Amino acid sequence: MSETITILGAGSWGTALAMVLADNGHTVRLWGNEENHVKEINQDQANNRYLPGVELPEGITAYYDLEEALEDVETVVFAVPTKAFREVARRVKSIVKNKITIVHVSKGIEPDSLLRISEMLEEEIADITKDIIVLSGPSHAEEVSRRIPTTVTVASKNMEAAQGIQDLFMNQNFRVYTNQDLVGVEIGGALKNIIALAAGITDGLGYGDNAKAALMTRGLAEITRLGVKMGADPLTFLGLTGIGDLIVTCTSVHSRNWRAGNLLGKGKSLDEVLDSMGMVVEGVRTTKAAHQLSEKYQVKMPITNALYDVLFNGKDIKQEVEDLMGRSKKHEMEELIDLVNEER
Amino acid sequence: MSETITILGAGSWGTALAMVLADNGHTVRLWGNEENHVKEINQDQANNRYLPGVELPEGITAYYDLEEALEDVETVVFAVPTKAFREVARRVKSIVKNKITIVHVSKGIEPDSLLRISEMLEEEIADITKDIIVLSGPSHAEEVSRRIPTTVTVASKNMEAAQGIQDLFMNQNFRVYTNQDLVGVEIGGALKNIIALAAGITDGLGYGDNAKAALMTRGLAEITRLGVKMGADPLTFLGLTGIGDLIVTCTSVHSRNWRAGNLLGKGKSLDEVLDSMGMVVEGVRTTKAAHQLSEKYQVKMPITNALYDVLFNGKDIKQEVEDLMGRSKKHEMEELIDLVNEER
Repeated sequence: MSETITILGAGSWGTALAMVLADNGHTVRLWGNEENHVKEINQDQANNRYLPGVELPEGITAYYDLEEALEDVETVVFAVPTKAFREVARRVKSIVKNKITIVHVSKGIEPDSLLRISEMLEEEIADITKDIIVLSGPSHAEEVSRRIPTTVTVASKNMEAAQGIQDLFMNQNFRVYTNQDLVGVEIGGALKNIIALAAGITDGLGYGDNAKAALMTRGLAEITRLGVKMGADPLTFLGLTGIGDLIVTCTSVHSRNWRAGNLLGKGKSLDEVLDSMGMVVEGVRTTKAAHQLSEKYQVKMPITNALYDVLFNGKDIKQEVEDLMGRSKKHEMEELIDLVNEER
Repeated sequence: MSETITILGAGSWGTALAMVLADNGHTVRLWGNEENHVKEINQDQANNRYLPGVELPEGITAYYDLEEALEDVETVVFAVPTKAFREVARRVKSIVKNKITIVHVSKGIEPDSLLRISEMLEEEIADITKDIIVLSGPSHAEEVSRRIPTTVTVASKNMEAAQGIQDLFMNQNFRVYTNQDLVGVEIGGALKNIIALAAGITDGLGYGDNAKAALMTRGLAEITRLGVKMGADPLTFLGLTGIGDLIVTCTSVHSRNWRAGNLLGKGKSLDEVLDSMGMVVEGVRTTKAAHQLSEKYQVKMPITNALYDVLFNGKDIKQEVEDLMGRSKKHEMEELIDLVNEER
């Protein structure tokens, strides 16, 4: 059954998801906050700023007017950077009168409030929300836009709502699994960006594949420890939105968090890196939030906290990495056992 | 305290481990089964066949005579391909009279007998064995030989024995953790080669990072399912010898299993690939063994079994990958939940 769906955010991921929906026969309104960019997309039948050279299928129209974009839709996909999230949510609330199903595809934790994205949404627009579903997993937009097979997870407290979104997006190149663990899916997706930054740093410093694999392994362990304390199922971190997303983000040059870390490892300052990226680097904000979470929940997060000290306290990057490598702990299972004892 | 240690197998890994021990002040006898190669190593102070351009530190001598190599040593490291394992073990047994501590660093399962390496050792040389320790983890020999930081795990039923081996190898560039789960460490190390072959195939076929991350995620899930049935702790698969080794083997071009898979994906036949590699590709033998294990233990292993059909039953590689992508299962946690229900 063909539906009309609004996607908020005309970046690479919003556009790639618009293509999946259009391929499935749906009508997509792709809202962007830059008037010229919106015009370009409609003129070119392409989003050449973020997905250069990819032709958009029929059924996608870009909108600059948010009111028009939201008129009479039942499903709205939020694909905006976490920094702009609250502002966009408030604008949506001021326009929409009926209850809508909200899908969000952003990965982050808000510093200070320490809210996950779905919690931010609840805080802002609970009264116009039917259900909140998160879509996450190992999914570079570039590959999805070229219809290269990709597998993701949708999670919601309401499984029927998750299945509805699964049906909208699922096709031969885009496999969608369901999961009930909203907390685990959101924590895994957000915090993997921290490990990707750290992996970029070790690569930039000239460490090898062995060290990077060890970093990723221990990174997943600390993410899992925090997630479990926050109410997540530890098994979620073994799935697509845990290990899967961690792998893709740490090992692909497509990943902007890895790229930012790589520049840091090569000796650039944080300001220089952020300037030169020209895109949002979610991992920097998330490091701050996760550092606060590790204190709030009293969870040991050595990689996160070392990165925090490098980014925000001017600590020496090489010294921090060497300290991490040299930690005195000798029994591999200690950390993991702590985790499971709490959970079992 | 300085010891004399014998390493059996003068390939890249045996040699890199010899360097770690020599760096720690130990005397190492590196046994090789080709007389010319042994001479070359001693003449060149380097193993230019397997680690070209790397100078060996003082304290390493290569031996061709096994009896000389084993004289009066208490610790013997087996670093031979699994195919040659039994033969070498029998030769050791015919020579050694005292009880020795055995470290093995090989990754595989013997087809038909379905024994792990430590079980093969017990079958062959239990009466001259004090303890068996396995050393495993994300550790390309090339990087270890260049003293790039690396982290591994040693596992044994006897934790004191494992700690003894930890003390021998541990240094600033080579971090060693201990673990008691011999079964989990051996299964993870062996079966990750299957997933590396499969990852090479998807890369060779031109799939992207998204598909590869999904494959690795689901590969780890099926390895864990089998391991748990065989008595492993599921947490071990979250550690260095599970995820860690899987990541390094699937994502690095150093990996010969990945390279073999890559050639298969590009359309070469298995015979052509094995001929052109000129090295042992453990993953091929392990696929056969794991296929048999999945039947014996009644565990679903879709990736292993698809690869088995490609390697040994002439099935079409592209069709198998597409069948894997299109599996009807829609709830991500089903497989993981099965696993944990059995375990809890």
